[in-house]
Amino acid sequence: MKATAELQVIPIGKGVSVRQEITRVVGLLHEYGLIIETHASGTNIEGELADILAAVEKIHEVLHKEGCVPLVSYLKVETRTDKAPTLIGKRL
Amino acid sequence: MKATAELQVIPIGKGVSVRQEITRVVGLLHEYGLIIETHASGTNIEGELADILAAVEKIHEVLHKEGCVPLVSYLKVETRTDKAPTLIGKRL
Amino acid sequence: MKATAELQVIPIGKGVSVRQEITRVVGLLHEYGLIIETHASGTNIEGELADILAAVEKIHEVLHKEGCVPLVSYLKVETRTDKAPTLIGKRL
Amino acid sequence: MKATAELQVIPIGKGVSVRQEITRVVGLLHEYGLIIETHASGTNIEGELADILAAVEKIHEVLHKEGCVPLVSYLKVETRTDKAPTLIGKRL
Repeated sequence: MKATAELQVIPIGKGVSVRQEITRVVGLLHEYGLIIETHASGTNIEGELADILAAVEKIHEVLHKEGCVPLVSYLKVETRTDKAPTLIGKRL
Repeated sequence: MKATAELQVIPIGKGVSVRQEITRVVGLLHEYGLIIETHASGTNIEGELADILAAVEKIHEVLHKEGCVPLVSYLKVETRTDKAPTLIGKRL
Repeated sequence: MKATAELQVIPIGKGVSVRQEITRVVGLLHEYGLIIETHASGTNIEGELADILAAVEKIHEVLHKEGCVPLVSYLKVETRTDKAPTLIGKRL
Repeated sequence: MKATAELQVIPIGKGVSVRQEITRVVGLLHEYGLIIETHASGTNIEGELADILAAVEKIHEVLHKEGCVPLVSYLKVETRTDKAPTLIGKRL
């Protein structure tokens, strides 16, 4: 099932800058072959829903292994049956 | 990896009441053996992260099969390495 | 205009426990005369939309004054014209 | 207080396309003199927190007046005291 999604990962307690962790998140999303578009409030994603969900699990595993103690992820997932969901189709 | 989560599923375009779809979502979460607590704005969940993510994918599959055309899910996932995350531990 | 809402405030960089800040948030919401229900993932709110929004601004002002450097709030607002929105009416 | 924010407004029950309502939302945000960046999953905003919150209230008022029965808005607000929050500063 194809989906579009938006992901924001927050490493709580890592101090005021979380840029390094976000760069890591984007790198991991790329490893799953997903189409991604970063923006000022998160990362938009297009791909197979199963791959998006697998990437979220992997991101939590990797960031914990690299020292993040508490992690919160906000994931919005959109699917539809009338046409293939795409990031391009969702732009104004 | 254990996680706590919050899920809200919105069947867009289904009219002003979506109670039937939400009841279906809760029923599907129960099938995955997750601890769940419904509240006025969504459903809190405790369990294995892999099970929570599998349930989200299943919910989209089932609701589409039962007639929902566009679906949006909001999933918040929290994991931590210093202690097991539980819903009870997150209450004030 | 009456609304139901859900608020989660995250003081980033405050360490792994944010219980003290969340207690402060709930106290400030009470000062605005809002109906509130805390749960494991946030606080559900019922009241005038203008009051809810004023409370959010106040919460950011107060928490910054008390030492939080970066703050993120997630606010979901629901309004409807067919009936008065209530937290009780949104429970399953 | 300056803030960055992300807003997504969902007119539930309006059918599978909500493009018209979203265009209206963006137009109303512009009337408040806010810096805005639309993307595939919502609209990023930079400006005074009070203006952002006033715009959200106005959007609910206007969309209800124009026929939307239930409305849900998701607003993420970020403020910080160590430097002025900007959309440009939040890009990777």
